[in-house]
Amino acid sequence: MDNFTFRNPTKIIFGKGTESTVGMETAKYGKKVLLHYGGGSIMKSGLYDRVVASLKAAGLAYVELGGVQPNPRLELVHRGVKLCRDEGVDFILAVGGGSTIDSAKAIAMGVPYEGDVWDFYAGKAAPKRALPVATVLTIPAAGSESSDSTVITNEDGWFKRGYSSELVYPVFSILNPELIFTLPAFQVVCGAADIMAHMMERYFTNSKNVETVDRIIESTMKTVIHNVPKFLANQKDYDAAAEIMWSGTLAHNNIMSTGRMGDWASHNIEHELSAIYDVAHGAGLATVFPAWMKYTMKHDLTRYVQYAERVWNVDVNHWDPEGTALEGIRRQEAFYRSVGLPVTLKELGAGEDRLEEMADKATKGDTETIGQFVKLKKADIMAILDLAK
Amino acid sequence: MDNFTFRNPTKIIFGKGTESTVGMETAKYGKKVLLHYGGGSIMKSGLYDRVVASLKAAGLAYVELGGVQPNPRLELVHRGVKLCRDEGVDFILAVGGGSTIDSAKAIAMGVPYEGDVWDFYAGKAAPKRALPVATVLTIPAAGSESSDSTVITNEDGWFKRGYSSELVYPVFSILNPELIFTLPAFQVVCGAADIMAHMMERYFTNSKNVETVDRIIESTMKTVIHNVPKFLANQKDYDAAAEIMWSGTLAHNNIMSTGRMGDWASHNIEHELSAIYDVAHGAGLATVFPAWMKYTMKHDLTRYVQYAERVWNVDVNHWDPEGTALEGIRRQEAFYRSVGLPVTLKELGAGEDRLEEMADKATKGDTETIGQFVKLKKADIMAILDLAK
Repeated sequence: MDNFTFRNPTKIIFGKGTESTVGMETAKYGKKVLLHYGGGSIMKSGLYDRVVASLKAAGLAYVELGGVQPNPRLELVHRGVKLCRDEGVDFILAVGGGSTIDSAKAIAMGVPYEGDVWDFYAGKAAPKRALPVATVLTIPAAGSESSDSTVITNEDGWFKRGYSSELVYPVFSILNPELIFTLPAFQVVCGAADIMAHMMERYFTNSKNVETVDRIIESTMKTVIHNVPKFLANQKDYDAAAEIMWSGTLAHNNIMSTGRMGDWASHNIEHELSAIYDVAHGAGLATVFPAWMKYTMKHDLTRYVQYAERVWNVDVNHWDPEGTALEGIRRQEAFYRSVGLPVTLKELGAGEDRLEEMADKATKGDTETIGQFVKLKKADIMAILDLAK
Repeated sequence: MDNFTFRNPTKIIFGKGTESTVGMETAKYGKKVLLHYGGGSIMKSGLYDRVVASLKAAGLAYVELGGVQPNPRLELVHRGVKLCRDEGVDFILAVGGGSTIDSAKAIAMGVPYEGDVWDFYAGKAAPKRALPVATVLTIPAAGSESSDSTVITNEDGWFKRGYSSELVYPVFSILNPELIFTLPAFQVVCGAADIMAHMMERYFTNSKNVETVDRIIESTMKTVIHNVPKFLANQKDYDAAAEIMWSGTLAHNNIMSTGRMGDWASHNIEHELSAIYDVAHGAGLATVFPAWMKYTMKHDLTRYVQYAERVWNVDVNHWDPEGTALEGIRRQEAFYRSVGLPVTLKELGAGEDRLEEMADKATKGDTETIGQFVKLKKADIMAILDLAK
């Protein structure tokens, strides 16, 4: 187990009807709120009205900024920063999924910073302060509701880049599983693919003797695998929704990072994919991950055999560890397909014409590698994308 | 899954040599430290010298209070409160195991409180403030290094009572698995029994649809079960020590309480046992728990079958769920014995002469019940203690 530091201060408020506490909780931190959200789904579901009523009941002022898109854009972040400064906002409340939360975190860091908030994502500066951020989560997926990270897309060149800072852990996050009853099924399964990817990015590690967290990841993967089809069969199944939602937070609150180095190459590759083709992040991950797994399998076959056995219930063939590992990957692909996810670039609807461009961007023109489990050069990424065709 | 709120702000600093950071971390919160510890073991191991050197290097003043005993006493807490007030202490650093940490938490709550700190444990008052507490953990067991709870024994009547408050989450805890190399083996296995008990108290619940946390508990139990014998075979095995230590913290940082109601009757019964006979808490739990399990098994046989299968690898006999459940309990007893733990009151070295007195105290003269999974009256406790003979 590697030495580590772990601290996650986010307060989770979980369960039915919990969005009614948002005003009371917000009042502990701020007086004037930026209410940040995406499109009309929170209007249609009535969530917007409930949140606004709770803020008003707590005597809070607020301004609004909607319009967050999937793969949230820097331009809207800039508008948010300006709005907060103009209006004297002291608290950012994201009502939505990972994109809205990531956008809110960017705004929170941007408000007290004199330069361009993109500096953080470009690795040119580090924030010293941020406004407090909180969330009402509507999509279990990104884990951003209890993470220190944010991913933003810069339209100027379509760069999609992540940044992590302790300053942007949400002070609280409200998780009501009922809120996912109205999501389109495809959005739920894309979210599940993202949740699973967050666990796999951590699972495939070169760190040795990491049994506690290996087992926690395996068991949480199993919970997701069990509950997604259950939820799809009945999209009013609170119990299944609750398991998916809580697993999604645990998958990315950094407990599963303790004592080990994660990989994250698949996320990097997918970021290039969705920046260029604007595909859903989770669908992109479902496509990239099995290809990445086939490509990296021989780097640590024992880990892949353990994964196949413990997560996918593959009977280990001790004379054929490679076959055992491959059967695990095959079951993973079959699972993705069974819930309506793509596992090839074709099924994803991404073109194949710009693969080299993506591999080039991910490695900054083949000058850098991505990933930790296996350090990938441009040619490796090309080979992985080829396996994903 | 029940609605819940979860927040755990403790910063964990984990790994080899991490006690060298204690001065630097402490300086973020205080200027004058109460260094609180037990007996001579931290002197002998050199830990005391390293901690003091780190505090001095950070320019911190400190006063000392040693002498914490297992089942920490109210009298020493009172002395600590007075010492802190007299000396203007603003930070409590516990260097030791759960007893030392629990004593430190009591002192931290007592210093700013005008009445007797026992008021909190007696349920007569709630603290409004507390000094910040931090820990350097030497024994993986109680989980107090990342919990909001403390248990103190009042010598006036030998009452052992717990109290929980967000105010006493340690601000940081330093966990170096190397520190357990010098522990007597019996102390390690008692710690493991305590860790397992913390998970079982949460596992046996009436809350329905709690798969995520069920699986996390099962997998962490397995990690402990796997690594304790490994550590006993080589008490310099850092990897096994690290798994035990991190599992011990995860077992009690309240992640495993999310969405469910725990039981805690076995802890209550054991508190009476160790208050009267001054036995090791973990050994008492190893004795009480299997008896409690046999007594409560029929309340939810399905849960016991799941437990037997997933934690103890029992092949389920679907025609005989009771036999399956019992085989799980039998394997648990066999495990305890295999690592040198008692599973009967006789093996524990506790007398059988005061069982009724214990049952009486636990239920306040049969006017209250204990436990949540099954609510136990005095006669139930007597029956459980009878099964433990």
